[in-house]
Amino acid sequence: MYHYAQPHPAVTTDVVLFTIRAGRLELLLVRRRHEPFAGCWALPGGFLDIDEDLDTCAARELEEETGVRGVYLEQLYTFGAPERDPRERVIAVAYYGLAPADTIEVQAGSDAGAAAWFARDALPGLAFDHARIVELAHRRLAAKLSYSTIALQLLPREFTLSRVQAVYEVILGRPLDKRNFRRQLLALGCLQETDEHQRDGNHRPARLYRVRAPQTVAFFK
Amino acid sequence: MYHYAQPHPAVTTDVVLFTIRAGRLELLLVRRRHEPFAGCWALPGGFLDIDEDLDTCAARELEEETGVRGVYLEQLYTFGAPERDPRERVIAVAYYGLAPADTIEVQAGSDAGAAAWFARDALPGLAFDHARIVELAHRRLAAKLSYSTIALQLLPREFTLSRVQAVYEVILGRPLDKRNFRRQLLALGCLQETDEHQRDGNHRPARLYRVRAPQTVAFFK
Repeated sequence: MYHYAQPHPAVTTDVVLFTIRAGRLELLLVRRRHEPFAGCWALPGGFLDIDEDLDTCAARELEEETGVRGVYLEQLYTFGAPERDPRERVIAVAYYGLAPADTIEVQAGSDAGAAAWFARDALPGLAFDHARIVELAHRRLAAKLSYSTIALQLLPREFTLSRVQAVYEVILGRPLDKRNFRRQLLALGCLQETDEHQRDGNHRPARLYRVRAPQTVAFFK
Repeated sequence: MYHYAQPHPAVTTDVVLFTIRAGRLELLLVRRRHEPFAGCWALPGGFLDIDEDLDTCAARELEEETGVRGVYLEQLYTFGAPERDPRERVIAVAYYGLAPADTIEVQAGSDAGAAAWFARDALPGLAFDHARIVELAHRRLAAKLSYSTIALQLLPREFTLSRVQAVYEVILGRPLDKRNFRRQLLALGCLQETDEHQRDGNHRPARLYRVRAPQTVAFFK
C-alpha cells in the first residue's frame, strides 16, 4: 500500500563499542541526562539529522557523548519493535566496533551525564532494549572471530599466537584448546610468520606473527 | 544532541528474495506503478506502518506486491544515504531470503504493476539504490554458505552431495573443486549420512544425506 503520507518514525543510531582492558571484555556506556530513563546507563547514540548519513550519525553521536572518535564502526542490525521507546516510534540502527583501550580517551559530553567502560558480564540495567542490542553485538563479534581478522585490531603490529588466543578467549568467554586454535587460526591464511621471536616469561621464545591482510576470509575458495 | 523535535525520515522495508530456477540464481522484482521510477523494476517493499514491526512490514509488503507469503526472511542491512529517494529522506531496512521456486506462486498486487523472477546476472536497471541492495544480499548469501545451512533450504529432505555442490556453484557463480568442497562441507558437521543411495544418470549410486540440524555452524568450538 501507499503509506507515503503516514506519520514517520524517529530514527536513531546507537553504538556498542567493545574493548579489552585488564583481560576483560568491556563496552562503553553513557549515563542518560534526559527522560526517558534519565540517570540510567545506555549505549551512546541519538537521533539522526534529516540530511545526515547513518554512518556519520553513529560516529557523531559517539563522539558527542563520549569524546571517542576515529574508531571503525560497522552496522549491526536495526531494532524496530513498536514499543521500544515510550515517547514515540523510534527505529534504532545499531552499530558496533572493537578498538584498543589504550588509544581511546573517554570524556562525557552533551546528553550524557557520564561515560564509562563496563565489563560485558557485569553490566548495569540498561535503558530501552539496549541489553538486547549488546547481546546481539557480542554474538556477532564472537561469530566474526571465525572468519575475519577483527580481533587482530586489538593487537600490536607483531604478536605471538598466545596473545591472539588470549584475545579470542576473552571475547568468547571460555578457554580454547591451544593446538586446535592454532591450527584453525593459521588455516584462515591471514597471518604471516616473521623471523622474530619473543620470550614469554619462563617459556621458550615464541615466534612473532603479523597480519597478512586485514580482511574477511573466504572459506570456500 | 537532542534532536527529538526534528523532522523524521520515512522508513521502508525492501526484500531481496532469491531462488534457483533452471540452474540459475534468480530474484523477485516488481514493476513500479507510481512515481518516482514509475514503470521501473524494483525490489518488493514499501513504507512501514507507524505501529508495525519491521519483520512484519517486510513480509506484508512482499505479500501485497507479489503474492508470496510464508518465506523465511532475514534482515540484511539498513540503507540510508540522504539522496537515495528523490521525494524525501527514506531509510530502507533491507531483508533477504532464499526459497525453493516450486513452493512460490507469484502474483502482482497493489503498488506493483507486475512481479517476476529475473536472473541475478541479467537484471534490468533497478529503481533507487536497489542494485546496491541486491549486490550486498548476494555477497551475504555467498558468505553465508560457508558457515550455515542456508543453501540446504533449497534441497529436498534427502540429497546427494553433487546436488548440494550444484546449489553452491549456482549461488557463487563458479565451479568448485569436488574433493575440496566435500571435505569442507562435511567438516561443517551439519550433514548426516543415510543408508540410502541414489543413481545419478550413468554414474555409480551416490549416497544420500540429510541435514543434521539447520543451524549456523560454530567454527571455533
